[in-house]
Amino acid sequence: MGSSFTTSRRVEFRDTDAAGIVHFASFFEWMEEVEHEFLRQLGVSVMMVSDGVRVSWPRVHTSCDYHSVLRFADVVDVDLTLAKLGTSSVTYHFAFRFQEHEVASGKVVTVCCRINDDQPPQSVPIPDTVREKLSQAMKSRTDWQSVKQQ
Amino acid sequence: MGSSFTTSRRVEFRDTDAAGIVHFASFFEWMEEVEHEFLRQLGVSVMMVSDGVRVSWPRVHTSCDYHSVLRFADVVDVDLTLAKLGTSSVTYHFAFRFQEHEVASGKVVTVCCRINDDQPPQSVPIPDTVREKLSQAMKSRTDWQSVKQQ
Amino acid sequence: MGSSFTTSRRVEFRDTDAAGIVHFASFFEWMEEVEHEFLRQLGVSVMMVSDGVRVSWPRVHTSCDYHSVLRFADVVDVDLTLAKLGTSSVTYHFAFRFQEHEVASGKVVTVCCRINDDQPPQSVPIPDTVREKLSQAMKSRTDWQSVKQQ
Amino acid sequence: MGSSFTTSRRVEFRDTDAAGIVHFASFFEWMEEVEHEFLRQLGVSVMMVSDGVRVSWPRVHTSCDYHSVLRFADVVDVDLTLAKLGTSSVTYHFAFRFQEHEVASGKVVTVCCRINDDQPPQSVPIPDTVREKLSQAMKSRTDWQSVKQQ
Repeated sequence: MGSSFTTSRRVEFRDTDAAGIVHFASFFEWMEEVEHEFLRQLGVSVMMVSDGVRVSWPRVHTSCDYHSVLRFADVVDVDLTLAKLGTSSVTYHFAFRFQEHEVASGKVVTVCCRINDDQPPQSVPIPDTVREKLSQAMKSRTDWQSVKQQ
Repeated sequence: MGSSFTTSRRVEFRDTDAAGIVHFASFFEWMEEVEHEFLRQLGVSVMMVSDGVRVSWPRVHTSCDYHSVLRFADVVDVDLTLAKLGTSSVTYHFAFRFQEHEVASGKVVTVCCRINDDQPPQSVPIPDTVREKLSQAMKSRTDWQSVKQQ
Repeated sequence: MGSSFTTSRRVEFRDTDAAGIVHFASFFEWMEEVEHEFLRQLGVSVMMVSDGVRVSWPRVHTSCDYHSVLRFADVVDVDLTLAKLGTSSVTYHFAFRFQEHEVASGKVVTVCCRINDDQPPQSVPIPDTVREKLSQAMKSRTDWQSVKQQ
Repeated sequence: MGSSFTTSRRVEFRDTDAAGIVHFASFFEWMEEVEHEFLRQLGVSVMMVSDGVRVSWPRVHTSCDYHSVLRFADVVDVDLTLAKLGTSSVTYHFAFRFQEHEVASGKVVTVCCRINDDQPPQSVPIPDTVREKLSQAMKSRTDWQSVKQQ
């Protein structure tokens, strides 16, 4: 399977714990960082005002499977795959690789929401300009994959 | 469904983000805190030396479903359920409740491992003294549930 | 020296790092938590709307001196002293104690500010209702000290 | 004043809080990250075994003064200055700049220590190989400054 976006992160000291390995929660911070780096590269802002409404992307599901460990100062490669584009939601898959081995894999489902200070976030359809960019990113990934698989 | 262990956590300022709500990764920190509080109450240490071997509990799977949001200073109730006791692994379910509504639910699978500084953690059978305490905790939960369901 | 407010915190696993001790940044998180616990106990909210203006307390100075270390599961006592009450600013001193020894001491200077999304926070005089409560807390500390010192 | 080392960091979403600005504790995480990046570039490891002894660098003092705020996605430049090289300790100064303005400045004093699991870290003289590299970095900074100041 191909990937639309690959970047990397270095394990910082605060990512480690007393077991001498990376704390499991750091993988979730990296997923968010990489998602935002991907959106930024597409020209999509994570916090934006669309037609006078403040919209952002709260998560409705996140998960991670850990296959191996990372240690201080390791550089981990992260592949983001835009797996599904719904009316309001976007699903991302993540693969974490260190020295050619997958050390963890994760999943994040975000929902485009209207944000208010006094009431819960309310899901809204993904704005057209954003949908177009995500849709394009998804297609270019598919094309690239089909080339690679020949 | 009943719960073997209930505690609570207050949302601290650093748990919030610029969307004005609790950051999704804080739920994973709470799951670990509550798991450790549960084990401590049973007299089980998370980092221990058993028969001369250093053992700890890395996670192999963690996930969370978010149903609603929490804000600064909210006090959230957390129910931990010991869902499965394997040879080396323990599965916990978590329910996060605020004002009688479930705001999130999570799952953590940990594996009892021998910890070394130079090689990956290696799974080992759960030490008998620990297994007994966990097993007892599981049973007492079942009993309590059956009483409640009558 | 006496203290107006004492509470405690348990070292969680995520507070530790690969050196096997508490990460230095956790002390700053505890200072903020304890400051907020102190204000909450006084009935003062950290994020509030006063006369239609949203006010909060950004920090202008924070520091910490580390005398010893803490490890996983240690319970640390924290003494907060309201050291100075300015027109807009409040200075807190913190002492961290473990097994009767001071392991660290810290200082935080916060400034009451008007918060806007598009411009920097702007300092404002501490609202009268808040000033009164802080002032009272400061006095009661002094009284209590003088009794203890007799 | 010149600087021996400059790098940058992007504000991630988890660095922000409900006041819409960067949480004050993130500046301490950046100081550590930048210190480690500086040492890595010099070929100095933060966790190392020297003559069979495990040594690391706990902090004995950290502080930060905040002059302005940062928001989500801002890229902040960080200048590290190696300010003082003692027998066992190293003092770093940090300047955080955003759009040509200094938003914060910080200080960190670390002490080279022998690390044990059962007793407190014990200060030791900085190993010669490390001292030489730090000393050289300090000198090259001075040289570079004097060139710039002509």
